[in-house]
Amino acid sequence: MYKIAVIPGDGIGKEVMEATLHVLDALEIEFDYTFADAGDECKAVSGVPLPEETIDIVKESQACLFGAAGESAADVIVRLRQELELYVNLRPVKSYPGTKALFDNLDFVIVRENTEDLYIGLEEETEEGATALRVTTRNAVERICKFAFDYADENCRNKVTAVHKANVLKKTDGLFKDIFYKVAEDYKDIETDDRYVDATAMFFITNPQMFNVIVTTNLFGDILSDEGAGLVGGLGLIPSANIGENSGLFEPVHGSAPDIAGKNIANPSAMILSAVMMLDYLKEHGAARTVENALVEVLSEGKVVTGDIGGNASTMEMASEIRRKI
Amino acid sequence: MYKIAVIPGDGIGKEVMEATLHVLDALEIEFDYTFADAGDECKAVSGVPLPEETIDIVKESQACLFGAAGESAADVIVRLRQELELYVNLRPVKSYPGTKALFDNLDFVIVRENTEDLYIGLEEETEEGATALRVTTRNAVERICKFAFDYADENCRNKVTAVHKANVLKKTDGLFKDIFYKVAEDYKDIETDDRYVDATAMFFITNPQMFNVIVTTNLFGDILSDEGAGLVGGLGLIPSANIGENSGLFEPVHGSAPDIAGKNIANPSAMILSAVMMLDYLKEHGAARTVENALVEVLSEGKVVTGDIGGNASTMEMASEIRRKI
Ligand SMILES: CC(C)[C@H](C(=O)O)[C@@H](O)C(=O)O
Ligand SMILES: CC(C)[C@H](C(=O)O)[C@@H](O)C(=O)O
Repeated sequence: MYKIAVIPGDGIGKEVMEATLHVLDALEIEFDYTFADAGDECKAVSGVPLPEETIDIVKESQACLFGAAGESAADVIVRLRQELELYVNLRPVKSYPGTKALFDNLDFVIVRENTEDLYIGLEEETEEGATALRVTTRNAVERICKFAFDYADENCRNKVTAVHKANVLKKTDGLFKDIFYKVAEDYKDIETDDRYVDATAMFFITNPQMFNVIVTTNLFGDILSDEGAGLVGGLGLIPSANIGENSGLFEPVHGSAPDIAGKNIANPSAMILSAVMMLDYLKEHGAARTVENALVEVLSEGKVVTGDIGGNASTMEMASEIRRKI
Repeated sequence: MYKIAVIPGDGIGKEVMEATLHVLDALEIEFDYTFADAGDECKAVSGVPLPEETIDIVKESQACLFGAAGESAADVIVRLRQELELYVNLRPVKSYPGTKALFDNLDFVIVRENTEDLYIGLEEETEEGATALRVTTRNAVERICKFAFDYADENCRNKVTAVHKANVLKKTDGLFKDIFYKVAEDYKDIETDDRYVDATAMFFITNPQMFNVIVTTNLFGDILSDEGAGLVGGLGLIPSANIGENSGLFEPVHGSAPDIAGKNIANPSAMILSAVMMLDYLKEHGAARTVENALVEVLSEGKVVTGDIGGNASTMEMASEIRRKI
């Protein structure tokens, strides 16, 4: 029995969450769900996008499933990441069959630092305009690099690439690069290299096979993981895991998509794959593979899939089809 | 007769510059070239990557052709941009025939702010690590937005998109977004919208046709323009213009490429197209089209082109072929 916080949030967040819970329900694992509010609707009703009660519910759970938040997303998700010290944002870039992926067999992972950088919220108005502080601490860099190498180690991935802009950001990203190579010394079996973020953005398109595990700072990870989503057929497919010492929060990379919300046409795959990441986090690897394989089967058949990947099934029809395969 | 500063720089910079001057030589325009040093080799010889003399030569010229610099690129090019107040970095993303472009008929332009943001160089070591200051000033934002709209206006482009991360960088990018829409009021005929940088990185792949003119801050422009290069077949094809009130500096987006330097195999197109941008800047539009068309012809034929785009011509052979078509 796992205690799981569930935050459907706004827009399609609600729909893909419902679809995902429907799929999880087919597993022989018991989940004790506690629903909690966050996002634009919550703000409209309660005055705040992220009530303290929601934070408490997440803190008291073993993991959290998060749908999507609208305009208030930054105030919800960035704060949750920081409050819960979810210092890792793990974002797989994996091509699935039957999708519009530019490349078949693409399979790499972006390990994004999740607590600092320009996300620290130290902005100031000045006479001439405004400033924002980019913060890089040795501790945060060290733990994210260690995580990346441990992750590579445990998942039979043999290369870790640090992505930075140390030619311009000599001190902050210089530190990132230095610590990366220092941490690497403890992982002699894993190949390492480093790339500039701009070059990486190009190589994602011209030679993505060169990447296996990428470790990078917060904002670069944000940008590159959306680009990665583009590579494998769009945000409808990309899950993510926010992981800390004591908890994990699992969310699709896509947002609340107000343009298609309420129509029951959103692709539930990213949310379902986020649940798969949660299962792996809970060490329910068998169940994780079961759900992932069921999804892959449905994608391969390409019959009962949503419009974004060429079908005409509704969100719930696709979820039910996945559930049938479990 | 135009006074042009020429900085071949390091690695393939020298080769593509030689090729470009060979092409320009076929025009009925007189250029008075002054060669100047900058980059790694210059640093090895003179102790500094960017001698004052070089800065002076550029200042005294009407325009500058710049090849590439190696490891010291940031110290050379970022400083030149700032010293000469080259506040615009114009980066077309245009697919040419015969290249490995993902999309045919792609043709949009990134207008990148070129003087501030994290490029301002305000980094500090702290007890816990290091910080960097992101600076956004009203003046710089206003002039770059104005440039983008004027550029759209003059080039029959009917849409300008602001790219930012104002949901997280509420003050700095909030200002950017506000000023963008304020400037837009003076250009009623031009459609406007704005996008988050992460979403933009995805849309470049899934729906690049939605973009026409993009205006964005320095670092986002850096990353997105390399991604744009990936879209149209790699850095071998992408030119750029650094433009200020009093001068212009024209350089390929690619670097010195030490791995292929000295082999006479680098694609000269990006440098030649940079020279085309220089010709346009000098209002030699006829000559600009002549060179561009000659290049397009050679690319379309696909016979005398370099290895990166499927041929086996040398840098100089490709340049000579282009020259023959002029
Ligand atoms: C909503 C936004 C604050 C968030 C981020 O920038 O981290 C999102 O883009 C993401 O990648 O999870
Ligand atoms: C060399 C580097 C400092 C430079 C930049 O980041 O601006 C380059 O990547 C570019 O895009 O011109």
